[in-house]
Amino acid sequence: MPEIDRSEPYADLMHLAVAHGDTVHLAGIVADDLGADMEGQTRDVLGQLDEFAKAQGLDRTRVLSATIYVTDMADKPAMNRAWQAFFDPAHLPARATIGVADLGPGVRLELVALLGR
Amino acid sequence: MPEIDRSEPYADLMHLAVAHGDTVHLAGIVADDLGADMEGQTRDVLGQLDEFAKAQGLDRTRVLSATIYVTDMADKPAMNRAWQAFFDPAHLPARATIGVADLGPGVRLELVALLGR
Amino acid sequence: MPEIDRSEPYADLMHLAVAHGDTVHLAGIVADDLGADMEGQTRDVLGQLDEFAKAQGLDRTRVLSATIYVTDMADKPAMNRAWQAFFDPAHLPARATIGVADLGPGVRLELVALLGR
Repeated sequence: MPEIDRSEPYADLMHLAVAHGDTVHLAGIVADDLGADMEGQTRDVLGQLDEFAKAQGLDRTRVLSATIYVTDMADKPAMNRAWQAFFDPAHLPARATIGVADLGPGVRLELVALLGR
Repeated sequence: MPEIDRSEPYADLMHLAVAHGDTVHLAGIVADDLGADMEGQTRDVLGQLDEFAKAQGLDRTRVLSATIYVTDMADKPAMNRAWQAFFDPAHLPARATIGVADLGPGVRLELVALLGR
Repeated sequence: MPEIDRSEPYADLMHLAVAHGDTVHLAGIVADDLGADMEGQTRDVLGQLDEFAKAQGLDRTRVLSATIYVTDMADKPAMNRAWQAFFDPAHLPARATIGVADLGPGVRLELVALLGR
Protein backbone atom coordinates (compact mmCIF):
# COMPACT_ATOMS: atom_id res chain seq x y z
CA MET A 1 0.00 0.00 0.00
CA PRO A 2 1.30 3.50 -0.82
CA GLU A 3 2.37 5.50 2.21
CA ILE A 4 0.27 8.43 3.43
CA ASP A 5 2.16 11.70 4.01
CA ARG A 6 0.37 14.27 6.15
CA SER A 7 1.14 17.97 6.65
CA GLU A 8 1.12 19.50 10.12
CA PRO A 9 -2.07 18.79 12.08
CA TYR A 10 -4.52 21.68 12.35
CA ALA A 11 -6.39 22.27 15.63
CA ASP A 12 -6.00 18.54 16.50
CA LEU A 13 -8.89 17.90 14.11
CA MET A 14 -7.41 17.43 10.67
CA HIS A 15 -4.40 17.64 8.46
CA LEU A 16 -4.78 20.34 5.83
CA ALA A 17 -2.88 18.34 3.20
CA VAL A 18 -2.71 14.57 2.86
CA ALA A 19 -0.67 12.96 0.07
CA HIS A 20 -1.16 9.38 -1.12
CA GLY A 21 -0.29 7.68 -4.39
CA ASP A 22 -0.30 10.26 -7.15
CA THR A 23 -2.62 12.77 -5.49
CA VAL A 24 -2.55 15.36 -2.71
CA HIS A 25 -5.82 16.10 -0.91
CA LEU A 26 -6.45 19.58 0.49
CA ALA A 27 -9.56 20.41 2.51
CA GLY A 28 -10.78 23.06 4.88
CA ILE A 29 -8.66 25.84 3.40
CA VAL A 30 -10.03 29.22 4.54
CA ALA A 31 -8.46 32.67 4.57
CA ASP A 32 -6.13 33.57 7.43
CA ASP A 33 -7.51 37.11 7.38
CA LEU A 34 -11.28 36.75 7.71
CA GLY A 35 -11.68 40.52 7.76
CA ALA A 36 -10.77 40.64 4.06
CA ASP A 37 -13.39 40.94 1.31
CA MET A 38 -14.08 38.10 -1.15
CA GLU A 39 -11.28 39.01 -3.54
CA GLY A 40 -8.84 39.19 -0.62
CA GLN A 41 -10.03 35.94 0.97
CA THR A 42 -9.77 34.17 -2.39
CA ARG A 43 -6.22 35.47 -2.94
CA ASP A 44 -5.35 34.29 0.57
CA VAL A 45 -6.80 30.79 0.03
CA LEU A 46 -5.08 30.42 -3.36
CA GLY A 47 -1.81 31.59 -1.79
CA GLN A 48 -2.13 28.76 0.73
CA LEU A 49 -2.87 26.32 -2.10
CA ASP A 50 0.33 27.49 -3.75
CA GLU A 51 2.33 26.87 -0.56
CA PHE A 52 0.92 23.35 -0.20
CA ALA A 53 1.77 22.65 -3.83
CA LYS A 54 5.35 23.91 -3.40
CA ALA A 55 5.79 21.85 -0.22
CA GLN A 56 5.09 18.83 -2.45
CA GLY A 57 7.45 19.95 -5.21
CA LEU A 58 4.43 20.93 -7.33
CA ASP A 59 2.94 24.18 -8.60
CA ARG A 60 -0.43 25.67 -9.49
CA THR A 61 -0.52 23.92 -12.87
CA ARG A 62 -1.02 20.62 -11.02
CA VAL A 63 -4.46 21.38 -9.52
CA LEU A 64 -6.87 18.71 -10.78
CA SER A 65 -10.13 19.78 -9.19
CA ALA A 66 -11.50 22.34 -6.78
CA THR A 67 -14.80 22.61 -4.97
CA ILE A 68 -15.36 26.10 -3.60
CA TYR A 69 -18.06 26.61 -1.00
CA VAL A 70 -19.23 30.22 -0.74
CA THR A 71 -21.75 31.86 1.55
CA ASP A 72 -22.92 34.45 -0.99
CA MET A 73 -23.07 33.73 -4.71
CA ALA A 74 -23.09 37.49 -5.31
CA ASP A 75 -19.40 37.30 -4.34
CA LYS A 76 -18.61 35.09 -7.35
CA PRO A 77 -17.35 37.84 -9.69
CA ALA A 78 -14.89 39.04 -7.01
CA MET A 79 -13.77 35.45 -6.46
CA ASN A 80 -13.32 34.96 -10.19
CA ARG A 81 -11.08 38.01 -10.47
CA ALA A 82 -8.65 36.56 -7.92
CA TRP A 83 -9.02 33.11 -9.52
CA GLN A 84 -8.17 34.30 -13.03
CA ALA A 85 -5.22 36.34 -11.76
CA PHE A 86 -3.86 33.20 -10.08
CA PHE A 87 -4.28 30.44 -12.67
CA ASP A 88 -2.71 30.04 -16.08
CA PRO A 89 -5.72 29.70 -18.47
CA ALA A 90 -4.19 26.56 -20.03
CA HIS A 91 -3.98 24.81 -16.64
CA LEU A 92 -7.33 25.33 -14.95
CA PRO A 93 -8.80 22.68 -12.63
CA ALA A 94 -12.27 21.20 -12.83
CA ARG A 95 -14.31 23.47 -10.54
CA ALA A 96 -17.64 23.66 -8.77
CA THR A 97 -18.82 26.73 -6.86
CA ILE A 98 -21.53 25.89 -4.35
CA GLY A 99 -23.55 28.44 -2.39
CA VAL A 100 -24.01 27.14 1.14
CA ALA A 101 -25.63 28.29 4.37
CA ASP A 102 -22.71 28.64 6.78
CA LEU A 103 -18.92 28.23 6.80
CA GLY A 104 -18.26 29.70 10.24
CA PRO A 105 -17.93 33.34 11.36
CA GLY A 106 -16.44 35.59 8.68
CA VAL A 107 -15.60 32.78 6.26
CA ARG A 108 -16.68 33.75 2.74
CA LEU A 109 -15.18 30.75 0.93
CA GLU A 110 -13.73 27.38 1.80
CA LEU A 111 -11.68 25.32 -0.63
CA VAL A 112 -11.42 21.57 -1.13
CA ALA A 113 -8.89 20.67 -3.82
CA LEU A 114 -6.90 17.86 -5.33
CA LEU A 115 -3.38 18.11 -6.76
CA GLY A 116 -1.77 15.58 -9.06
CA ARG A 117 1.80 14.59 -8.34
CA MET B 1 4.56 12.39 -12.70
CA PRO B 2 1.50 11.33 -14.72
CA GLU B 3 0.42 13.85 -17.34
CA ILE B 4 -2.74 15.92 -16.83
CA ASP B 5 -5.20 15.95 -19.74
CA ARG B 6 -7.79 18.71 -19.71
CA SER B 7 -10.96 19.09 -21.76
CA GLU B 8 -11.85 22.40 -23.41
CA PRO B 9 -11.75 25.36 -21.01
CA TYR B 10 -15.13 26.68 -19.85
CA ALA B 11 -15.67 30.45 -19.48
CA ASP B 12 -11.89 30.91 -18.92
CA LEU B 13 -12.51 29.74 -15.36
CA MET B 14 -12.21 25.97 -15.36
CA HIS B 15 -11.93 22.82 -17.36
CA LEU B 16 -15.03 20.66 -17.02
CA ALA B 17 -13.03 17.41 -17.17
CA VAL B 18 -9.48 16.83 -15.99
CA ALA B 19 -7.85 13.40 -16.33
CA HIS B 20 -4.81 12.28 -14.34
CA GLY B 21 -3.50 8.85 -13.48
CA ASP B 22 -6.39 6.42 -13.38
CA THR B 23 -9.15 8.95 -12.69
CA VAL B 24 -11.11 11.65 -14.53
CA HIS B 25 -12.43 14.56 -12.48
CA LEU B 26 -15.66 16.28 -13.51
CA ALA B 27 -17.00 19.34 -11.71
CA GLY B 28 -19.46 22.13 -12.26
CA ILE B 29 -21.72 20.11 -14.53
CA VAL B 30 -25.11 21.85 -14.79
CA ALA B 31 -27.94 21.48 -17.32
CA ASP B 32 -27.66 23.32 -20.62
CA ASP B 33 -31.42 23.96 -20.52
CA LEU B 34 -32.08 25.65 -17.19
CA GLY B 35 -35.75 26.04 -18.06
CA ALA B 36 -36.21 22.27 -17.66
CA ASP B 37 -37.69 20.70 -14.52
CA MET B 38 -35.61 18.54 -12.18
CA GLU B 39 -36.06 15.33 -14.15
CA GLY B 40 -35.07 17.15 -17.35
CA GLN B 41 -32.07 18.88 -15.77
CA THR B 42 -30.88 15.58 -14.30
CA ARG B 43 -31.19 13.84 -17.69
CA ASP B 44 -29.25 16.71 -19.26
CA VAL B 45 -26.45 16.55 -16.66
CA LEU B 46 -26.15 12.76 -16.93
CA GLY B 47 -26.09 13.08 -20.72
CA GLN B 48 -23.08 15.38 -20.37
CA LEU B 49 -21.46 12.90 -17.98
CA ASP B 50 -21.92 10.25 -20.65
CA GLU B 51 -20.25 12.43 -23.27
CA PHE B 52 -17.27 13.12 -21.01
CA ALA B 53 -16.97 9.40 -20.34
CA LYS B 54 -17.08 8.56 -24.06
CA ALA B 55 -14.48 11.22 -24.84
CA GLN B 56 -12.18 9.26 -22.49
CA GLY B 57 -13.03 5.88 -24.03
CA LEU B 58 -15.16 5.08 -20.96
CA ASP B 59 -18.85 4.61 -20.28
CA ARG B 60 -21.37 5.11 -17.47
CA THR B 61 -20.31 1.91 -15.71
CA ARG B 62 -17.01 3.66 -14.81
CA VAL B 63 -18.46 6.34 -12.50
CA LEU B 64 -16.83 5.92 -9.09
CA SER B 65 -18.49 8.65 -7.07
CA ALA B 66 -20.90 11.53 -7.49
CA THR B 67 -21.79 14.45 -5.26
CA ILE B 68 -25.01 16.10 -6.36
CA TYR B 69 -25.84 19.53 -4.99
CA VAL B 70 -29.53 20.39 -5.21
CA THR B 71 -31.42 23.53 -4.27
CA ASP B 72 -34.61 21.76 -3.23
CA MET B 73 -34.59 18.31 -1.62
CA ALA B 74 -38.26 17.95 -2.60
CA ASP B 75 -36.86 17.49 -6.14
CA LYS B 76 -35.05 14.29 -5.13
CA PRO B 77 -37.70 11.80 -6.34
CA ALA B 78 -37.68 13.43 -9.80
CA MET B 79 -33.89 13.34 -9.83
CA ASN B 80 -33.90 9.69 -8.83
CA ARG B 81 -36.22 8.77 -11.71
CA ALA B 82 -33.73 10.16 -14.24
CA TRP B 83 -30.83 8.64 -12.26
CA GLN B 84 -32.29 5.13 -12.24
CA ALA B 85 -33.19 5.33 -15.93
CA PHE B 86 -29.56 6.22 -16.67
CA PHE B 87 -27.48 3.84 -14.54
CA ASP B 88 -27.22 0.06 -14.66
CA PRO B 89 -28.16 -1.06 -11.08
CA ALA B 90 -25.02 -3.22 -10.90
CA HIS B 91 -22.75 -0.25 -11.65
CA LEU B 92 -23.91 2.57 -9.41
CA PRO B 93 -21.43 5.12 -8.04
CA ALA B 94 -21.04 6.14 -4.41
CA ARG B 95 -23.38 9.14 -4.12
CA ALA B 96 -24.21 12.02 -1.82
CA THR B 97 -27.14 14.38 -2.40
CA ILE B 98 -26.68 17.66 -0.58
CA GLY B 99 -29.36 20.36 -0.26
CA VAL B 100 -27.67 23.75 -0.62
CA ALA B 101 -28.69 27.39 -0.63
CA ASP B 102 -27.79 28.57 -4.13
CA LEU B 103 -26.32 27.18 -7.36
CA GLY B 104 -26.96 30.21 -9.57
CA PRO B 105 -30.12 31.30 -11.42
CA GLY B 106 -32.28 28.39 -12.57
CA VAL B 107 -29.77 25.69 -11.59
CA ARG B 108 -31.58 22.86 -9.76
CA LEU B 109 -28.62 20.50 -9.53
CA GLU B 110 -24.87 20.58 -10.01
CA LEU B 111 -22.75 17.46 -10.35
CA VAL B 112 -19.21 16.71 -9.20
CA ALA B 113 -18.11 13.23 -10.25
CA LEU B 114 -15.13 10.95 -10.61
CA LEU B 115 -14.61 8.34 -13.32
CA GLY B 116 -12.14 5.46 -13.17
CA ARG B 117 -10.07 4.77 -16.25
CA MET C 1 -7.94 -0.42 -16.53
CA PRO C 2 -8.15 -1.21 -12.79
CA GLU C 3 -11.28 -3.11 -11.78
CA ILE C 4 -14.03 -1.37 -9.81
CA ASP C 5 -15.24 -3.16 -6.66
CA ARG C 6 -18.58 -2.03 -5.29
CA SER C 7 -20.17 -2.73 -1.90
CA GLU C 8 -23.82 -3.75 -1.63
CA PRO C 9 -26.19 -1.42 -3.48
CA TYR C 10 -28.21 0.97 -1.31
CA ALA C 11 -31.85 1.71 -2.18
CA ASP C 12 -31.12 0.87 -5.86
CA LEU C 13 -29.59 4.33 -6.12
CA MET C 14 -25.95 4.03 -5.17
CA HIS C 15 -23.22 1.91 -3.73
CA LEU C 16 -22.00 3.26 -0.41
CA ALA C 17 -18.39 2.20 -1.06
CA VAL C 18 -16.64 1.96 -4.42
CA ALA C 19 -13.01 0.85 -4.64
CA HIS C 20 -10.76 1.52 -7.64
CA GLY C 21 -7.01 1.66 -7.98
CA ASP C 22 -5.50 2.68 -4.65
CA THR C 23 -8.57 4.48 -3.27
CA VAL C 24 -11.97 3.65 -1.79
CA HIS C 25 -14.77 6.20 -2.24
CA LEU C 26 -17.47 6.52 0.41
CA ALA C 27 -20.43 8.84 -0.01
CA GLY C 28 -23.86 9.38 1.46
CA ILE C 29 -22.97 8.00 4.87
CA VAL C 30 -25.61 9.10 7.40
CA ALA C 31 -26.47 7.78 10.87
CA ASP C 32 -28.68 4.70 11.12
CA ASP C 33 -30.33 6.22 14.20
CA LEU C 34 -31.56 9.65 13.13
CA GLY C 35 -33.10 10.21 16.55
CA ALA C 36 -29.61 10.57 18.05
CA ASP C 37 -28.03 13.94 18.82
CA MET C 38 -25.01 15.24 16.90
CA GLU C 39 -22.43 13.41 18.99
CA GLY C 40 -24.40 10.16 18.59
CA GLN C 41 -24.92 10.61 14.85
CA THR C 42 -21.23 11.36 14.37
CA ARG C 43 -20.22 8.25 16.34
CA ASP C 44 -22.65 6.22 14.22
CA VAL C 45 -21.28 7.59 10.92
CA LEU C 46 -17.67 7.04 11.98
CA GLY C 47 -18.56 3.51 13.09
CA GLN C 48 -19.84 2.84 9.57
CA LEU C 49 -16.64 4.34 8.13
CA ASP C 50 -14.70 1.89 10.29
CA GLU C 51 -16.74 -1.05 8.98
CA PHE C 52 -16.17 -0.02 5.37
CA ALA C 53 -12.44 0.31 6.08
CA LYS C 54 -12.30 -3.15 7.68
CA ALA C 55 -14.22 -4.69 4.78
CA GLN C 56 -11.32 -3.47 2.61
CA GLY C 57 -8.63 -4.75 4.97
CA LEU C 58 -7.96 -1.17 6.09
CA ASP C 59 -8.46 0.80 9.28
CA ARG C 60 -9.18 4.37 10.40
CA THR C 61 -5.56 5.46 9.89
CA ARG C 62 -6.13 5.16 6.12
CA VAL C 63 -8.69 7.97 5.77
CA LEU C 64 -7.28 10.51 3.31
CA SER C 65 -9.99 13.13 3.23
CA ALA C 66 -13.46 13.79 4.57
CA THR C 67 -16.10 16.34 3.68
CA ILE C 68 -18.76 16.60 6.35
CA TYR C 69 -22.01 18.34 5.52
CA VAL C 70 -23.90 19.55 8.59
CA THR C 71 -27.25 21.27 8.92
CA ASP C 72 -26.29 23.33 11.97
CA MET C 73 -22.77 24.65 12.53
CA ALA C 74 -23.62 25.07 16.22
CA ASP C 75 -23.38 21.25 16.32
CA LYS C 76 -19.68 21.36 15.41
CA PRO C 77 -18.27 21.08 18.96
CA ALA C 78 -20.38 17.94 19.58
CA MET C 79 -19.23 16.52 16.25
CA ASN C 80 -15.61 17.28 17.11
CA ARG C 81 -15.86 15.40 20.43
CA ALA C 82 -16.90 12.20 18.63
CA TRP C 83 -14.32 12.90 15.89
CA GLN C 84 -11.40 13.28 18.30
CA ALA C 85 -12.45 10.19 20.27
CA PHE C 86 -12.39 8.22 17.02
CA PHE C 87 -9.20 9.30 15.24
CA ASP C 88 -5.58 8.90 16.27
CA PRO C 89 -4.20 12.49 16.25
CA ALA C 90 -1.24 11.40 14.11
CA HIS C 91 -3.53 10.02 11.40
CA LEU C 92 -6.16 12.66 10.76
CA PRO C 93 -7.63 13.15 7.30
CA ALA C 94 -7.89 16.42 5.40
CA ARG C 95 -11.35 17.70 6.41
CA ALA C 96 -13.92 20.29 5.44
CA THR C 97 -17.08 20.96 7.46
CA ILE C 98 -19.75 22.66 5.38
CA GLY C 99 -23.00 24.07 6.78
CA VAL C 100 -25.79 23.29 4.31
CA ALA C 101 -29.52 23.84 4.03
CA ASP C 102 -30.97 20.32 4.03
CA LEU C 103 -29.76 16.72 4.27
CA GLY C 104 -33.16 15.06 4.58
CA PRO C 105 -35.41 14.57 7.65
CA GLY C 106 -33.44 14.14 10.89
CA VAL C 107 -30.03 13.99 9.22
CA ARG C 108 -27.57 16.20 11.11
CA LEU C 109 -24.44 15.22 9.18
CA GLU C 110 -23.55 13.38 6.00
CA LEU C 111 -20.06 12.13 5.25
CA VAL C 112 -18.17 11.84 1.97
CA ALA C 113 -14.73 10.29 2.47
CA LEU C 114 -11.80 8.74 0.69
CA LEU C 115 -9.63 5.89 1.97
CA GLY C 116 -6.19 4.98 0.66
CA ARG C 117 -5.45 1.30 0.09
